[in-house]
Amino acid sequence: MLLARVQGTVVASQKEPSMDGFKFLLVRPLDETGAETGTAVVAVDAVGAGVGEVVLFATGSAARQTVATKDRPCDAVVMAIVDIFEVGGREVYRKGGE
Amino acid sequence: MLLARVQGTVVASQKEPSMDGFKFLLVRPLDETGAETGTAVVAVDAVGAGVGEVVLFATGSAARQTVATKDRPCDAVVMAIVDIFEVGGREVYRKGGE
Amino acid sequence: MLLARVQGTVVASQKEPSMDGFKFLLVRPLDETGAETGTAVVAVDAVGAGVGEVVLFATGSAARQTVATKDRPCDAVVMAIVDIFEVGGREVYRKGGE
Amino acid sequence: MLLARVQGTVVASQKEPSMDGFKFLLVRPLDETGAETGTAVVAVDAVGAGVGEVVLFATGSAARQTVATKDRPCDAVVMAIVDIFEVGGREVYRKGGE
Amino acid sequence: MLLARVQGTVVASQKEPSMDGFKFLLVRPLDETGAETGTAVVAVDAVGAGVGEVVLFATGSAARQTVATKDRPCDAVVMAIVDIFEVGGREVYRKGGE
Repeated sequence: MLLARVQGTVVASQKEPSMDGFKFLLVRPLDETGAETGTAVVAVDAVGAGVGEVVLFATGSAARQTVATKDRPCDAVVMAIVDIFEVGGREVYRKGGE
Repeated sequence: MLLARVQGTVVASQKEPSMDGFKFLLVRPLDETGAETGTAVVAVDAVGAGVGEVVLFATGSAARQTVATKDRPCDAVVMAIVDIFEVGGREVYRKGGE
Repeated sequence: MLLARVQGTVVASQKEPSMDGFKFLLVRPLDETGAETGTAVVAVDAVGAGVGEVVLFATGSAARQTVATKDRPCDAVVMAIVDIFEVGGREVYRKGGE
Repeated sequence: MLLARVQGTVVASQKEPSMDGFKFLLVRPLDETGAETGTAVVAVDAVGAGVGEVVLFATGSAARQTVATKDRPCDAVVMAIVDIFEVGGREVYRKGGE
Repeated sequence: MLLARVQGTVVASQKEPSMDGFKFLLVRPLDETGAETGTAVVAVDAVGAGVGEVVLFATGSAARQTVATKDRPCDAVVMAIVDIFEVGGREVYRKGGE
């Protein structure tokens, strides 16, 4: 999984029928200091995440291991909202504490 | 999935028989500002996308989760045409609004 | 899939028995202008491609979706020989027209 | 697999139910000299690794091949704690010998 | 698959039980000129390769398509020892001819 911040949303009405009803989030990976890094990814939301939140997303076939995404052409899923992450015993991020 | 713009098409008459009948699109990933980034990928079109459109494409085994691409040696599929994408509440792209 | 040019061949007599009989091609990805980019990959040839030709190759589990490569420890396969690729309506490459 | 050093931990109470009970480690890949390189990854701990230890982690569908992670939306798992790694006959790292 | 040179070995006594008995090789990818490039990967040895040899390794689910690695949390396997590789008809590497 990668740490990421939810940056925005994507709307796509014309799509594979099996992808109907999903909420697409634009997420940008974070490095271990909490800084955004690399290219933004579009992930299906499986946990009710909102813009600005720090989340974990899984990619590849793992992204089809939720009830919602099973057998769908989905290669990225937000599967957790991060409360805290620490590096070397030091808290880098705490939800609501920014 | 990644945001991408359809840049062009690829014709290949000599290919794995199971790949017959597919339309191959050359798509280039977009970053969260809508700028093209990284290397272009060739994806099977599952939604009738045209050159110039902004789409979502899925890679890896997810690309075989459409009726058309099941069990084919296909590792990338365009599975949605993007109407709108927003970052931080600001609209970055709207189909037809460019 | 990625566009690539076949650069050369690899011979490996000592290998997993299930990989016997395959022709290994060294292919280098091409960007949308037809320029070589990134690191060369070794792919099994499923279409009779030759050195110098422009091809498509698939990676990951897609590379095991040909009759020849099913259930083999193969993660890249050349599954098409490119005739033409176009970007924005302009022909970038035509087989035999270089 | 990649060599990595465990940098920290991630706590996420709101997540896919199938991910309950896992310990999430933030690991940063190491190059062949033992230097940290690239972006940190969040991996499920399958071996009881601690912060500061050098480990191996596997990604992709391999990350679901442990009893704990089978069929979970998990794309990275710490599956070994490294005792020693050598390059060209020279010991680069020995656990406890740093 | 990628061309790589075996650089060293990794010893890990504390690991997923299903990974017992494997030899872990540290391999570094090679480009088409035979120069080392990118980050070293730890791959299970399926062919008896030694330090200094040029090999092919496969990643992802392909790495579980050998008898030894089936259903193991293994995402990289050395599945061939390279005898010769050629680029544009010119021999870049021949085993024993360095």
